[in-house]
Amino acid sequence: MPQLRIALAQVNTCVGDVAGNSSMVRDWTRRAVQDGAHVVAFPEMTLSGYPIEDLTLRKSFAAANRDALEQLARDLQADGCGDALVVVGHLGRDDEGPRNSASLLYSGEVVATYNKHHLPNYGVFDEARNFAPGFELPIVKLHGVDVGVVICEDIWQNGGPVAALGKVGVDMVVCINASPYERSKDDQRVPLVSARAVEAGAPLAYVNLVGAQDELVFDGDSLIADAEGRIIARAPQFAEHLLVADLELTSGGHTSTTVPAEPGPIRMPAFDVKRTVLQPEPVPSFEPRPLPVPAEPLSDEDEVWGALVTGLRDYVHKNGARSVTFGFSGGIDSAVCAALAVDALGPDSVHGVSMPSVYSSEHSRSDAADLARRLGCHYETHAVADMVDIYVRQLELTGLAEENVQARVRGVLLMALSNQHGHLVLATGNKTELAVGYSTIYGDAVGAFAPIKDVPKTLVWKLARWRNDAAEKRGEVPPIPENSISKVPSAELRPDQTDQDSLPEYDVLDVVLDGYVEGDKGYQDLVSDGFDAELVERVLRMVDRAEFKRRQYPPGTKITFKAFGRDRRLPITNRWREIAP
Amino acid sequence: MPQLRIALAQVNTCVGDVAGNSSMVRDWTRRAVQDGAHVVAFPEMTLSGYPIEDLTLRKSFAAANRDALEQLARDLQADGCGDALVVVGHLGRDDEGPRNSASLLYSGEVVATYNKHHLPNYGVFDEARNFAPGFELPIVKLHGVDVGVVICEDIWQNGGPVAALGKVGVDMVVCINASPYERSKDDQRVPLVSARAVEAGAPLAYVNLVGAQDELVFDGDSLIADAEGRIIARAPQFAEHLLVADLELTSGGHTSTTVPAEPGPIRMPAFDVKRTVLQPEPVPSFEPRPLPVPAEPLSDEDEVWGALVTGLRDYVHKNGARSVTFGFSGGIDSAVCAALAVDALGPDSVHGVSMPSVYSSEHSRSDAADLARRLGCHYETHAVADMVDIYVRQLELTGLAEENVQARVRGVLLMALSNQHGHLVLATGNKTELAVGYSTIYGDAVGAFAPIKDVPKTLVWKLARWRNDAAEKRGEVPPIPENSISKVPSAELRPDQTDQDSLPEYDVLDVVLDGYVEGDKGYQDLVSDGFDAELVERVLRMVDRAEFKRRQYPPGTKITFKAFGRDRRLPITNRWREIAP
Repeated sequence: MPQLRIALAQVNTCVGDVAGNSSMVRDWTRRAVQDGAHVVAFPEMTLSGYPIEDLTLRKSFAAANRDALEQLARDLQADGCGDALVVVGHLGRDDEGPRNSASLLYSGEVVATYNKHHLPNYGVFDEARNFAPGFELPIVKLHGVDVGVVICEDIWQNGGPVAALGKVGVDMVVCINASPYERSKDDQRVPLVSARAVEAGAPLAYVNLVGAQDELVFDGDSLIADAEGRIIARAPQFAEHLLVADLELTSGGHTSTTVPAEPGPIRMPAFDVKRTVLQPEPVPSFEPRPLPVPAEPLSDEDEVWGALVTGLRDYVHKNGARSVTFGFSGGIDSAVCAALAVDALGPDSVHGVSMPSVYSSEHSRSDAADLARRLGCHYETHAVADMVDIYVRQLELTGLAEENVQARVRGVLLMALSNQHGHLVLATGNKTELAVGYSTIYGDAVGAFAPIKDVPKTLVWKLARWRNDAAEKRGEVPPIPENSISKVPSAELRPDQTDQDSLPEYDVLDVVLDGYVEGDKGYQDLVSDGFDAELVERVLRMVDRAEFKRRQYPPGTKITFKAFGRDRRLPITNRWREIAP
Repeated sequence: MPQLRIALAQVNTCVGDVAGNSSMVRDWTRRAVQDGAHVVAFPEMTLSGYPIEDLTLRKSFAAANRDALEQLARDLQADGCGDALVVVGHLGRDDEGPRNSASLLYSGEVVATYNKHHLPNYGVFDEARNFAPGFELPIVKLHGVDVGVVICEDIWQNGGPVAALGKVGVDMVVCINASPYERSKDDQRVPLVSARAVEAGAPLAYVNLVGAQDELVFDGDSLIADAEGRIIARAPQFAEHLLVADLELTSGGHTSTTVPAEPGPIRMPAFDVKRTVLQPEPVPSFEPRPLPVPAEPLSDEDEVWGALVTGLRDYVHKNGARSVTFGFSGGIDSAVCAALAVDALGPDSVHGVSMPSVYSSEHSRSDAADLARRLGCHYETHAVADMVDIYVRQLELTGLAEENVQARVRGVLLMALSNQHGHLVLATGNKTELAVGYSTIYGDAVGAFAPIKDVPKTLVWKLARWRNDAAEKRGEVPPIPENSISKVPSAELRPDQTDQDSLPEYDVLDVVLDGYVEGDKGYQDLVSDGFDAELVERVLRMVDRAEFKRRQYPPGTKITFKAFGRDRRLPITNRWREIAP
């Protein structure tokens, strides 16, 4: 039985940083080879970063990818890693257009390239727009083992290249991925990896990207399934990791070189199988090491917190910023953002600003100061009363215009501090506010990044309690003041205002929003689910009206399928209303 | 020879307004039938509006389209229009998913439905994301004439349904469209319509949408080509119009019901042809009316001005606003926006605001006032010095932070007027500024719509002169003060500032930007084109850095292929630079 030691490099790339990403491949390959690996696999689009969207169309970027790939093959050889088979994702380009490619590097050369076949074009994905699909399946023989390669969506669609590899026969499948995190996504991903291994009749090694890129977070969670579909190795979430495992493989038995066309309304062409022999002889038999202890999946809150911390940290750092500033209002949203920011960047990189107006309560100021003390971050106070007053008097503002001016004056103030001191401004709004439009554009929506943009209000509270409990368990000071969690939420833009003057109770509101936004349920569906018809009508009206505001909101870490972001595209001008106006 | 009178209803629909769009179909069909039309064709996605993006995924919206379609067939019958064949676009939905459909209504029923086959997925289009492609070709016999229907992109791709119709034989093709305007697009569209008529071996009637939807403008320009490809009728641009023409047709000669598969790497399945006989007998022979005089295509400036006026008017009106407000700075950009706004909405709907700071020149104020006088619009002055002063003193602002505060104080001021009086705020920046990032987010970028977002600075000047000349030719007061056109451009955020302190000369800058943005040329290409290497480097650096600012900019009318908007998707976090940093 041939043996191989495989290393899955679960790394954190950056879009566009071809040189940095290449150098990362060299570093991790050296580590893997020093550890005796015969195969080293990196995630989808490692050299380019992922997702690169319309950067695919820029020929000079494709040329830079090609040059870097060829240089990388030579550099790996020079590094003494030429005997390892290195699988690396990159942007390809040929006569058919841009490609989402996985190249196999060996002995200083690019020995084979696979172009992703199934191009996802839903949710956050635009791949049918950005890439031409591939129809060739390279299989390389390394140390007597036939290795096939597929990319991410290829395993999420039935009847694709994995089935084809299974039919022609393959001894191991490497699947490279940039599979974005969603809450509980591993409930789908793990059984899928198992099922595809069974379909291929061979072990499947699944390496995923880790880290964040704009709104997307990649959780890692790389896996190896054996030919029977058992998960035999698993990497942690939200951390770079080299997952090394020794595999004993079955080899041989291939009879055909072409797979018959798939059935279905659109007939798929046959895949062309291209075989390359790199090394026909198995490696000398060795004593396999025990498999690494599989990483335990995280709890729901732990996982969400990890996603939010990763999203914020990478957005700030990958954009070249070192510190953030935002309003500390004393409320729960800014408190959770502050705890996230300190976990992501450290207390010295967080600059809280209290901006009391004439309507701010005493407890707001004291809770904000308490938060800063608990976190050990920077904290200053700038009253906005004088600025607000000039606008209100000079323009004779009343009602909503007066309320909004307070929020906007704060936005200008934070941007001035950002321009003067170089901090990146965070917007602290949550998903519930964003859904119903309970925010001021150019006011509290000001910022380069919105850490809890995809977190419903009820989950904000849950995360706050979870984070405080976690601190207590570790014997640390709970970061979030109890009063910020327990008090009645208020925007404090007029006397004695509370959120529930304008909104239904959050526990009901969040459930209706989840049905309407995530579940794509209509008015009738929700009423049939047992919600009060008047409440449903009220909520749906608010959501439908708020589309323009959502456009103006900064990006934020996505943790659900239908986050309000680039994966949800709606016209701005639109008279369709679930409820007739 | 059978005869038919065909009417192309070039109408202005609104996304989501199913009831309004249906009622428009009834009104225009009545007009056409009163004029003796046997066939009446409406644009692509008439009932739903276009583009509806992810609204396709909402099942309740698809159900509303289906109900409205069936009701419309009954209503047309009740209106006495049941003998006319009415071709209308709408959102369809079946087991395969959402469809971009054209239904044929006759005698109170939906007699056939075609689902668009070629789904564009580039530029502004997301149709492969939003629709399942169709593989059935209905052909209905009306008055002895076999009529086939195709939709928009179906004629822009080779080897599609038009070729299939040509092979099975058809006597007339109706092509319904929502084909967005771009400068000089008719240079491509007119020869294409001719070529497809020849390919079908039959006259092709091309009806296009007119009016604007968010960033897209549809220019109309509906056409009829005879079987030899000659354009025999043409509707005007940027106006609703009923184009009626009498056609003498050749009938018969069909031999097969299925077209062979297309060649190529992805084999297309055969189209299934479905024939329906509505009326086998030709209409009694009648004396054809002379063809209407074809509308003359507009000059370049006239066409662009028409697109910008249409874009602004429909954005404001379709979003339910009645008036606009924005800063009158005395400069060329706000002057052109003001002239556009008055042409689009009338002088009583335009509220100019002068917001002088301590750095504003005397000529700025007088030019702004002169502009308002020429246009006859509302005009008021609000000095911003006091507001700016508080920020600068309280936060000890200097340099760029001080400059930006002026722009942001103006943004807050305009939004306060908007909240207090209900005007929609316009952002007056041009494409050149947006490309290089020469603007202040939350400052001059504030607004719900940016009328000249896709107009380069040099074209802004050209349009100003053209608009003034047009006024003089009509014996009217030229709307734009000569001084606003001829003076040195300045943001006036510090003493004696001019745009060219920060930017290359606009005439060179715009050419380099056109090559980089529209032409997708790289650094080397531009240097090979003869541009100064240092200049190219400087410009490309600015464009690459400004991506985040562009994200925060409001939507604006698109007049080029690569407008900065939804059709150009790039990551925010991105270290790829055409020029190494």
